[in-house]
Amino acid sequence: MQLDPQQLSHVLSVWGVGRLATVRPDGAPHLVPIVFVWCDGCIWMPIDGKPKRSDPLQRLRNVARRPSVSLLLDHYDADWRALWWIRIDGTAEVVSGDPVAMPAAARIAQRLRAKYPQYQSVDLFSGPPTLLRMLPARHTAWSAQPVAWESLP
Amino acid sequence: MQLDPQQLSHVLSVWGVGRLATVRPDGAPHLVPIVFVWCDGCIWMPIDGKPKRSDPLQRLRNVARRPSVSLLLDHYDADWRALWWIRIDGTAEVVSGDPVAMPAAARIAQRLRAKYPQYQSVDLFSGPPTLLRMLPARHTAWSAQPVAWESLP
Repeated sequence: MQLDPQQLSHVLSVWGVGRLATVRPDGAPHLVPIVFVWCDGCIWMPIDGKPKRSDPLQRLRNVARRPSVSLLLDHYDADWRALWWIRIDGTAEVVSGDPVAMPAAARIAQRLRAKYPQYQSVDLFSGPPTLLRMLPARHTAWSAQPVAWESLP
Repeated sequence: MQLDPQQLSHVLSVWGVGRLATVRPDGAPHLVPIVFVWCDGCIWMPIDGKPKRSDPLQRLRNVARRPSVSLLLDHYDADWRALWWIRIDGTAEVVSGDPVAMPAAARIAQRLRAKYPQYQSVDLFSGPPTLLRMLPARHTAWSAQPVAWESLP
C-alpha cells in the first residue's frame, strides 16, 4: 500500500517519533528512536541535547560509511484493528554546522521548535548544529483497517 | 547503560511491541514492527495472521541470508523525561513447523496467547507455524531519567 504525496506529507508533519535503522560497518543493523521534521522533500533529524550514549554517535558513523537508511513510523495499540505502519527507505547524510549548511539548519531549527515544544527545556543541538538529512526514495505502508491518513493528529 | 538480567527479562516479558531491523540482500536496512515473547533465553516472533504485504516475508529472506538483527524496545512520550529505549543486538533464524521445531512452537504459542489476548480473534500463525527466533548477544539501554525497569507494566 502507498499513501499519496499529500497523505504522506501530512503524516510526516504531525507524527512525533520514528525508528531509524542504519547499517554498521560490520554489516549488522543498528536502531535508534528519533524525532524529525519534514521540510523541502527531506526528513531532518537533529542530534539534539537529549543525553547521548556515544560520541561521535554510531548513527553518524554508519551513515557516513553506508548512506542507506530505513525509517519506520508506526502506531501500536492494544486494539490490533488500529495498527498501521509506514516504512520509508532512502539515503541519509550528515549535515553539520558549516557555513553552507547553516541557513538550512536555522530553518530546520524553527520547524523543530514548532513541532516539539519540548525544545523549550531541551537543547535543540548538543553542540555545533548537526542533523541527519534523509532523502526518501520510496515508501511502503500497511494498516489493519483503512486509516484516514489526512486526519492523523 | 545495561539492565541486569532480571530487569531485562521482566521488560521482555511485559513489553508489547518491538521494532525489528534486518539487512536486505543489497545491504540496505529493513524495518518492521513485531510482537514477541521471551522464552528459554530467546526472543520469539511469530509470523502471525495479521495481514501481510509480501510472501515470503522480506524479514525471513533477509534473516536466512544475514542472521544479524537488532530489536528496539522503546517508550515515546510527549514528556521527554519519560523517554527510554533498549536495543538488543543478536542473530535470528527462521523456525518453521517441521517435526523438530513443533514442540517449541506449541510452547511459544501458549506464551503468545497468554501475553496477547488479541490472538483470540487473530490467527496466531498465518500458515504452518513459523517464527523468528532471536538469540540476544548484547544489549544497550538509555533513559532520560532513572526507570524502575522491574515495575514496567
